[in-house]
Amino acid sequence: MKIAIAGYGVVGRGAHELLLKNHAAIAARLGEELTVKYVLDPKDLTGTPGEGLKAAGIGEVLADPEIGLLVEAIGGVGAAYDYVRAALESGRSVVTPNKQLIAEKGAELLALAKEKDAALLFEPAVAGGTPVLWPIAHCLAANELDLAAGILNGTTNYILTKMVAEGADFAATLADAQRLGYAEADPTADIEGIDACRKACILADLLFGRHTDPEKVFAQGITKITAGDVAAADQAGFVVKLIGQARKMPDGKVLCLVTPALIGKGHPLAAVNDVFNAVMVHGNGVGEVMFYGRGAGDLPTGSAVLGDVIEAVRTGCRYDPMMSWTDCGSDHLADRRDYAIDALCRVKEPFAGLAARFPGAACIWERDGETAALVHGVPEGELEDYLAGRAVSPYIRVFAR
Amino acid sequence: MKIAIAGYGVVGRGAHELLLKNHAAIAARLGEELTVKYVLDPKDLTGTPGEGLKAAGIGEVLADPEIGLLVEAIGGVGAAYDYVRAALESGRSVVTPNKQLIAEKGAELLALAKEKDAALLFEPAVAGGTPVLWPIAHCLAANELDLAAGILNGTTNYILTKMVAEGADFAATLADAQRLGYAEADPTADIEGIDACRKACILADLLFGRHTDPEKVFAQGITKITAGDVAAADQAGFVVKLIGQARKMPDGKVLCLVTPALIGKGHPLAAVNDVFNAVMVHGNGVGEVMFYGRGAGDLPTGSAVLGDVIEAVRTGCRYDPMMSWTDCGSDHLADRRDYAIDALCRVKEPFAGLAARFPGAACIWERDGETAALVHGVPEGELEDYLAGRAVSPYIRVFAR
Repeated sequence: MKIAIAGYGVVGRGAHELLLKNHAAIAARLGEELTVKYVLDPKDLTGTPGEGLKAAGIGEVLADPEIGLLVEAIGGVGAAYDYVRAALESGRSVVTPNKQLIAEKGAELLALAKEKDAALLFEPAVAGGTPVLWPIAHCLAANELDLAAGILNGTTNYILTKMVAEGADFAATLADAQRLGYAEADPTADIEGIDACRKACILADLLFGRHTDPEKVFAQGITKITAGDVAAADQAGFVVKLIGQARKMPDGKVLCLVTPALIGKGHPLAAVNDVFNAVMVHGNGVGEVMFYGRGAGDLPTGSAVLGDVIEAVRTGCRYDPMMSWTDCGSDHLADRRDYAIDALCRVKEPFAGLAARFPGAACIWERDGETAALVHGVPEGELEDYLAGRAVSPYIRVFAR
Repeated sequence: MKIAIAGYGVVGRGAHELLLKNHAAIAARLGEELTVKYVLDPKDLTGTPGEGLKAAGIGEVLADPEIGLLVEAIGGVGAAYDYVRAALESGRSVVTPNKQLIAEKGAELLALAKEKDAALLFEPAVAGGTPVLWPIAHCLAANELDLAAGILNGTTNYILTKMVAEGADFAATLADAQRLGYAEADPTADIEGIDACRKACILADLLFGRHTDPEKVFAQGITKITAGDVAAADQAGFVVKLIGQARKMPDGKVLCLVTPALIGKGHPLAAVNDVFNAVMVHGNGVGEVMFYGRGAGDLPTGSAVLGDVIEAVRTGCRYDPMMSWTDCGSDHLADRRDYAIDALCRVKEPFAGLAARFPGAACIWERDGETAALVHGVPEGELEDYLAGRAVSPYIRVFAR
């Protein structure tokens, strides 16, 4: 099997390097040689493993009958979208780590893959190297799944881990992370929760079989988390994590959102630190399952890209109906304001005031004219409205004790 | 597709109940009805979902051309072995949670499955409901894997979790676990590490492609762990867990063993508590990955059984060469005594004595004529010989900091 790689950045090149590194073992497992015949990237490939493989354009690649599969690692929804459509239209299979493309255009592209009976796989789009989507769709296929949630972005998890360990504030920690290469020069997509939102949408898509439009999903980043929030959480027995979640509510609606959230210190997600990712899934047979590993990086993401390529080749490059969803509107989405939450609140009033409004609240501290407290079972809309004008910091919901 | 279930205990019945519970969703995902036509079990099935499905014997089941797959949930290597061989001989596929059968006879049965081009799947044999074997063999197929290790037995993890939380001794905690149904009346296979050893062998088999004979694997249980060991570990920043591991050593040999081991409190395995299992895998592309979930129970294990049934049906009930190994002797196995370890030692001598013999040792405490200390980088054989006659408790190796 000969493949083409479009986009030769960290992930595209990482996948190629890993294939060369483990070439013999992969061929032995698959019973077939796997070779990169073309690389599609405007940059100079001299000195890279892609040297001598540069294609003139997607037309040259798709005109070659030896090419059975395209790895799209360009990113975004411009050329990436055009190339993936063209490849599928031509009956070629596609593997992509492109979470924006799958979150925004997945339903449409899966419909095309189905029509052409071609594989469209995207394991690396969620949690990078960590196997998540395939095990959910297949190993847990006997379950009714009602929750997938977790730590979906390594940059923000690195920053929060440092803030928890060092009691540092957000801005200083971000600057450190940028200096060390754990955060990009423009970190917006990470720190504002946009990247995690795409991954939460893909999890919702896969669990519930319906396209979840990222534009309609509430995503809050970590830019407003302060050292004071982290300290109040710590005193109440929690750590702060950025959690993306896709959850079937008791009324049948799907709650999909990304927010900072509190995790009890003994919970397995609390031990997911630095740039690691983890996804927890709940099913009515299996109970809770968690997948943990690296969410980014050249070789880890390359591992997931190649795992998908191997799976596609092994199963004859055919469409996989178990790894799919359709677009039938957004009327299944829940409004977070309608549901009760537990949350950490920090307000400029005595604890008595908060407790009078929300019975069952538990005081964490009262000091310097500020109260930190945990409220319990409060409809989120009511809490949000009450805190407007009173809050020292945005409230942080409890995800798990 | 019609299937038969042999052995209608916790797992066989659990798989049947989960199939009935999620029948419509499973049929929709698979594009095909999945029905249990026979149950093979001498017990009275009245009042169970198996009522009216009792087969007279394996002969009746295999004579029925409608039956494509046998779920073997009898356990052990007596009738289970005979039935699985007979089913494979007849060209039927087999799914089994039977870790003893796969650990002892897996290579032989996989050779037969290959000859007949039938599926032989056994995801539930390691970590129960948690997807582990399939993701290792397929999602991580682009890696050279050098380690699979983890908490492979729920009963011992429950006991150790209580001992750590309560500072209690082994015997009292075991009695509690038996009273609550977390340990069996005869807990030998669990507490002596025999069950974990079978699972470690299956992980070694899958990672390195060679049969690992459980008889040749060192397996030590938790019966000698005391409250004092747990306290010394705690003071040094560790918790005690029963760890099964399969590791490719730098010299190319495979170290497979089950022992109590120390896990740093911040390590993800330290957060795996109660009856939960977790398997950590290391590959040269992906780095560290961990799978976490329930290692036993009717519906969790049933989820893995049905996941395998769905996978077998989806892929045409064919032999899966990526989920296999062969028997070519035991000369690949390493002797643990040849390799350096870090370990917690408790001896009846002053710290100075231990430190003179093992430079770099770190004292945890000296009291009541006893020293607790961590030694570093000591060949296990030398340590074992030195401690003979001096030890208050068996040494406990460090698995992860």
